[in-house]
Amino acid sequence: MTTLARLQAELGSIVSTDPTDLAAVREDKSGWVAAGIPLAVVRATTTEQVQATLRIASETGTPVVTRGAGTGLAGGACGTDGSIVLSVAGMNRILEIRPEDELAVVEPGVINQDLNDALAAYGLWFAPDPASKAICSIGGNIATNAGGLLCVKYGVTREAVLALTVVLADGRLLKTGHRTVKGVTGYDLTALLTGSEGTLGVIVEATVRVRAITPGEVVTLGAVFPDVASAAAASAAVIAARVRPAVMELIDPVALAMIADYLGPDGSAGLPIEGGAFLLLQTDGPAALAEADQAAAVLRSSGGQVRQSTDPASGERLLAIRRSAHPALAAYGEVLIEDVSVPRSRMAEMFERIAEISARTGVPIPTVAHAGDGNLHPNFVIPIDPLRRIGDPMVPDHIWAAADELFRAALALGGTLTGEHGVGVLKRRWLAEEIGDTSLELQRRIKAVFDPLGILGPDTMFGG
Amino acid sequence: MTTLARLQAELGSIVSTDPTDLAAVREDKSGWVAAGIPLAVVRATTTEQVQATLRIASETGTPVVTRGAGTGLAGGACGTDGSIVLSVAGMNRILEIRPEDELAVVEPGVINQDLNDALAAYGLWFAPDPASKAICSIGGNIATNAGGLLCVKYGVTREAVLALTVVLADGRLLKTGHRTVKGVTGYDLTALLTGSEGTLGVIVEATVRVRAITPGEVVTLGAVFPDVASAAAASAAVIAARVRPAVMELIDPVALAMIADYLGPDGSAGLPIEGGAFLLLQTDGPAALAEADQAAAVLRSSGGQVRQSTDPASGERLLAIRRSAHPALAAYGEVLIEDVSVPRSRMAEMFERIAEISARTGVPIPTVAHAGDGNLHPNFVIPIDPLRRIGDPMVPDHIWAAADELFRAALALGGTLTGEHGVGVLKRRWLAEEIGDTSLELQRRIKAVFDPLGILGPDTMFGG
Repeated sequence: MTTLARLQAELGSIVSTDPTDLAAVREDKSGWVAAGIPLAVVRATTTEQVQATLRIASETGTPVVTRGAGTGLAGGACGTDGSIVLSVAGMNRILEIRPEDELAVVEPGVINQDLNDALAAYGLWFAPDPASKAICSIGGNIATNAGGLLCVKYGVTREAVLALTVVLADGRLLKTGHRTVKGVTGYDLTALLTGSEGTLGVIVEATVRVRAITPGEVVTLGAVFPDVASAAAASAAVIAARVRPAVMELIDPVALAMIADYLGPDGSAGLPIEGGAFLLLQTDGPAALAEADQAAAVLRSSGGQVRQSTDPASGERLLAIRRSAHPALAAYGEVLIEDVSVPRSRMAEMFERIAEISARTGVPIPTVAHAGDGNLHPNFVIPIDPLRRIGDPMVPDHIWAAADELFRAALALGGTLTGEHGVGVLKRRWLAEEIGDTSLELQRRIKAVFDPLGILGPDTMFGG
Repeated sequence: MTTLARLQAELGSIVSTDPTDLAAVREDKSGWVAAGIPLAVVRATTTEQVQATLRIASETGTPVVTRGAGTGLAGGACGTDGSIVLSVAGMNRILEIRPEDELAVVEPGVINQDLNDALAAYGLWFAPDPASKAICSIGGNIATNAGGLLCVKYGVTREAVLALTVVLADGRLLKTGHRTVKGVTGYDLTALLTGSEGTLGVIVEATVRVRAITPGEVVTLGAVFPDVASAAAASAAVIAARVRPAVMELIDPVALAMIADYLGPDGSAGLPIEGGAFLLLQTDGPAALAEADQAAAVLRSSGGQVRQSTDPASGERLLAIRRSAHPALAAYGEVLIEDVSVPRSRMAEMFERIAEISARTGVPIPTVAHAGDGNLHPNFVIPIDPLRRIGDPMVPDHIWAAADELFRAALALGGTLTGEHGVGVLKRRWLAEEIGDTSLELQRRIKAVFDPLGILGPDTMFGG
């Protein structure tokens, strides 16, 4: 019996080989499309189905690509040729909310915003907030250790994961972590699995930490600077003044010009965003206003034109400038979002390197940054080629050459390839350069402990 | 050439076989004394010396016990028979402080308080604050993923570790993590090593995250309740009211009576602590006073007699009640501190279980708790036996039997064996019961990836 016949015999109608389904799971939000055709899509709704799928995959040596909402930005959930794409999008129940213990238990397919909507009734929220929170799933947040706009104050996804239930490559169930706030019994497999991008097991349940909604108002500042260097210096000065913003986002002049075009004059929230660099800052909590005043003073003395807003509507208009970055860029072509991170103090230098690389290669690199974290998203906008066929590479060689220079520049500044998106397929060729041979060897061997046959996400992280 | 001769030939005077030195490293602050005599103590001051020691250990198959300040509470740093005790206490330099990047780079032997003293000049601090912060080292904080009084608001040690340099069992150097705030390239080996209790490698350098000293005043509340159940319920009610205290500590009536004896009438800070249970609460930050008022109202409506203090001296007197717990108990005998953690909502039940176990076994179990975290420290006070010889078990069988009941009760309530002290030697017999066979097998195999000969801390966690 073939692998497909076994899947169909054991799992029935949740196994699809519909060509439309198979095509849809070959891509994610990075623009990457995997070569070849997956064997099948299995749409699991129970842990037992995940176990059955992995048992069959193990017995037949078939690669498995786990997929949630498909909003990844590194190609890690793209169904590769001949693989079983195991979709957990349908495992989307919120199993428990325990206000007294400040935790929730969820299935992996629960959408981040849906959990937050359910928590709001209890005065609680789930802090990890990737830009895609309206459409991304908690399982994917955990698999990539997702970041977002608020981690400068509220931490990354790892800090919000207490316990996991994971199906191993051979179908066995592993439980890690605890429902308690603290716990140090044995190795921290919960943290090891967080950010492992589907290469160590399939998350089927997560116990996440939730927190009280921050009391007090949110104050939003938008500031325009003549150039990116002064905006970067201003953001560093805010941190150096020991202000802890909840959000601090920077948009460079190249990206800002594209956003200004996209939003039109009415969308600029009263700021002259058609020239210069933009810094968006939010403070929250009981001292939000005092902190915002302090930050505004720092921004002004760093050369910024500052607009402050305490009412939600005008704050939202300022935030919309940042939120428009991706659609504004996408109006010009396919967007390849990079994700380097550097120590905060090196951010201005990283912007210089980006400008140099852009000038030398002739490739525009509009860049936005989580400035509070030193996490930059340089973007490559690739004009849509009507002649490109499915399977043709989206990213031309000269763009990869520019990206290569970008990664090396980040590493040279003491930075990292990826602050929050993951290695996936798109960055694996630089992995060894960052982590070194000793770490790579240990990581491959850890992978083999969990997945001796190497069937889980074989093209992700170490593969290919 | 013997192992000892090789150590002496290669490392010279940093190798000690002085019987006083060998005796001193057999114990830690748990009261545990390892059986037998270590082979030697190596007092490393450089990474190269650590590498040389581990190369010799690997080539000769000699066990290595890494030791910092020796303040552990689970026996993990106690030199076992025939082992090399590798002391990194002398690697105590602060290598960098980078205020703009909010990080510091330290050697493992740096004392927690010394780092904080150095950071204070920059308006910064290192948040992990075990009760032993005046005498414990950062390397040990990381090896145990130490907690403390402030983790309810500021997180555990894991959240403060950005990068590690580790010597592997074979002497190779491994670098993990990054100097950036965020970074997800590859598996999170930094988190895996944090809390691994010296069983995966020897930390020789750590890049830690530091943070701005919280502005505003600190407000301290001390509250006395008629019994531990009402105090536990009050602490849960504070969290349920969505107040986020920086410190929330509970002392049960058995411990409080011993502390009252120890402090005498002048030490009670104006509270009738000679009867009942005590809850200590601190709020900090710009809204400290408002949060304290809110918490005080909750405590009063839960039946507490509350005393509030905003001046540092009287706040310190309230805190001294909690700080006196260990010396007060130690006045009665050797103290075996347990460290179970349960979901906050089950804390009152855990106190009931402790009382039942104490009543049934006739063993007094004075208990203090980090109530904001649900982390309880039930203590067994063992009368000092003048006839006990070195090597004799400190903990009599009937105490272990009571401890065994305690651990099972915590696990049954969805809790964990150890919230912050680690498994070490003292809790390894319950490890499998908590984590299960699948996790145990994976963890042993991860251990083998890092330490194939099993020479690092062979009696710790999995060993024995």
